[in-house]
Amino acid sequence: MENKLNVVAFAGSLREQSLHKMLVNAAKELAPDNMNIEHLDISNVPLFNADLETDGFPAPVEAFRNKVAASDGIILAVPEYNGSMPGVLKNAIDWLSRGGLLAKRPSITMGGSPGALGGTKAQEHMRQSMMHLGMYVMPRPTIAIPQMGNKFTDGKLVDEATRGFVAQQLQEFGIWISRFN
Amino acid sequence: MENKLNVVAFAGSLREQSLHKMLVNAAKELAPDNMNIEHLDISNVPLFNADLETDGFPAPVEAFRNKVAASDGIILAVPEYNGSMPGVLKNAIDWLSRGGLLAKRPSITMGGSPGALGGTKAQEHMRQSMMHLGMYVMPRPTIAIPQMGNKFTDGKLVDEATRGFVAQQLQEFGIWISRFN
Amino acid sequence: MENKLNVVAFAGSLREQSLHKMLVNAAKELAPDNMNIEHLDISNVPLFNADLETDGFPAPVEAFRNKVAASDGIILAVPEYNGSMPGVLKNAIDWLSRGGLLAKRPSITMGGSPGALGGTKAQEHMRQSMMHLGMYVMPRPTIAIPQMGNKFTDGKLVDEATRGFVAQQLQEFGIWISRFN
Amino acid sequence: MENKLNVVAFAGSLREQSLHKMLVNAAKELAPDNMNIEHLDISNVPLFNADLETDGFPAPVEAFRNKVAASDGIILAVPEYNGSMPGVLKNAIDWLSRGGLLAKRPSITMGGSPGALGGTKAQEHMRQSMMHLGMYVMPRPTIAIPQMGNKFTDGKLVDEATRGFVAQQLQEFGIWISRFN
Repeated sequence: MENKLNVVAFAGSLREQSLHKMLVNAAKELAPDNMNIEHLDISNVPLFNADLETDGFPAPVEAFRNKVAASDGIILAVPEYNGSMPGVLKNAIDWLSRGGLLAKRPSITMGGSPGALGGTKAQEHMRQSMMHLGMYVMPRPTIAIPQMGNKFTDGKLVDEATRGFVAQQLQEFGIWISRFN
Repeated sequence: MENKLNVVAFAGSLREQSLHKMLVNAAKELAPDNMNIEHLDISNVPLFNADLETDGFPAPVEAFRNKVAASDGIILAVPEYNGSMPGVLKNAIDWLSRGGLLAKRPSITMGGSPGALGGTKAQEHMRQSMMHLGMYVMPRPTIAIPQMGNKFTDGKLVDEATRGFVAQQLQEFGIWISRFN
Repeated sequence: MENKLNVVAFAGSLREQSLHKMLVNAAKELAPDNMNIEHLDISNVPLFNADLETDGFPAPVEAFRNKVAASDGIILAVPEYNGSMPGVLKNAIDWLSRGGLLAKRPSITMGGSPGALGGTKAQEHMRQSMMHLGMYVMPRPTIAIPQMGNKFTDGKLVDEATRGFVAQQLQEFGIWISRFN
Repeated sequence: MENKLNVVAFAGSLREQSLHKMLVNAAKELAPDNMNIEHLDISNVPLFNADLETDGFPAPVEAFRNKVAASDGIILAVPEYNGSMPGVLKNAIDWLSRGGLLAKRPSITMGGSPGALGGTKAQEHMRQSMMHLGMYVMPRPTIAIPQMGNKFTDGKLVDEATRGFVAQQLQEFGIWISRFN
């Protein structure tokens, strides 16, 4: 459908079997009918260096930025690394932020942790940075999944309660996006 | 002198003319007599990916970690990117954190911003992550330099007040380190 | 005018000559034509204690909550006390939060500090708590006033640049509120 | 014993059946032999108002400050109210902070939440404020208790794992305090 909401999503972990990549895939499956979610790969986005900008963005950055520029909304799947967001995820944001590209873009975060506490510290930092950039961060509902490893089987989100939370957040996100059109 | 304190420092910006690299150089010059500060280059530390660890750390990471492992203390020069620490700096920490390497290491942050507010948001996030890792972060004095660009000439910190603040922080840091020996 | 936006504002400092009370008064004066700002006094809101709720809210809390319940938007003037928001301001929020009263309410923060750094740590914490509550916090523009004491004369905001920033934030806030109607 | 460590503790909740008051009582019981913990009541500490200081601190504040001034270390039991520390707890800190009373004091936080996530947001904010004040916050181990209500029976901490965590943190705190003597 040409008038579906065009949402992009990316995960803050680069490893092959990343739970947060699986979470993005779950979001793709659980999105409401009027929303299409595209999973963007950030593994080839280089380390940010302002000197690299002088002749234009590196090709993988340019492609990444174009996807975001054309989107109606952004989903960040945020693992917790050392009590904050992963460097690789913040690095992707640092490239995207140039020229005000992220300002006023509707957005949400979701995430979890293998432990008991759900990785909320990471999402808190990520959301502060997003607010600083003027992104329209939907405040609630939030997704913080404890014991995240137990919720997936063969790469698929199988925990019914968590599936419900993700579906509900995405439903609300569709409404949130529509407020800014 | 064989019994000088061996402190390592690195900056969260990769560009050639980085003000935070200049700040590390100023710290080297302003360190007390009993402290030697080595400036570590993080530009060749790759994006963190847990899959890369399976056969041992990549060579630049291994070298970087060895320097930190042999140190008595750590200085982070923290620019503010988008209301938080740079992705490249957090990425370096994500590599260093593996195996508990950073726990119980005395450490400080310093930084500034070109604008009026001194980049305190970045240092706040950095310090939260460092505390999470169990690092012994010296709480005060802190260095948050507003209008940072005006404080350097030809790569050298020339603002006398700022030089005094940095020298004082390093003096206190030497005492702080000695508490944990 | 019956269809003006009805905005309430309160300051996180109780002292008579509070700069943040003066800032609220400046906001009243600088509000756009379609917005009326009422300055609420929080000095008689008691310390939060859940035991006090069992027979209904204390009278000053009830009156305060009624004002907020009837509002179209909320402005918090946030001083920085000890690197965070004042206890008295958070205490007021703790009372207001009961029963979900604050969820989905459009809101902004503004503030400053006598020193160089503008008190941004306080607003960061306040905004995190507001987002946690599901408030619709306008991300930008923000107001962080350094050397705040120099910007007021005889209780009046006289610094022209700061007056412009406040007027612009309020203008944008009116648009932000309208997105959620 | 005259040379026991003299530690003071207070909880951020005023209600009679506060879980965090119970947690302080558990800490009293689980303290190592060389540490005495005194539970301070903050219910009569008034709302902070700088105007009240002009003729000296109010009597309950003066008494509270004297206890802290005579202590070797400070324990804060931190509930999470609305994604941050309670206003009443921050208010107590705002009074204690005057005149630099808190600087360089060894300290820890502990806390939990009735829900799954352990109330870490509250302790993060509290620790940032404490670091800002120059307090010597022990970084690890931390205590964040999920499903806190299930861990107590008749006012007593009965969960063995949690008892072990608290005892271990206090043991480490004793060592931490000794570093600063």
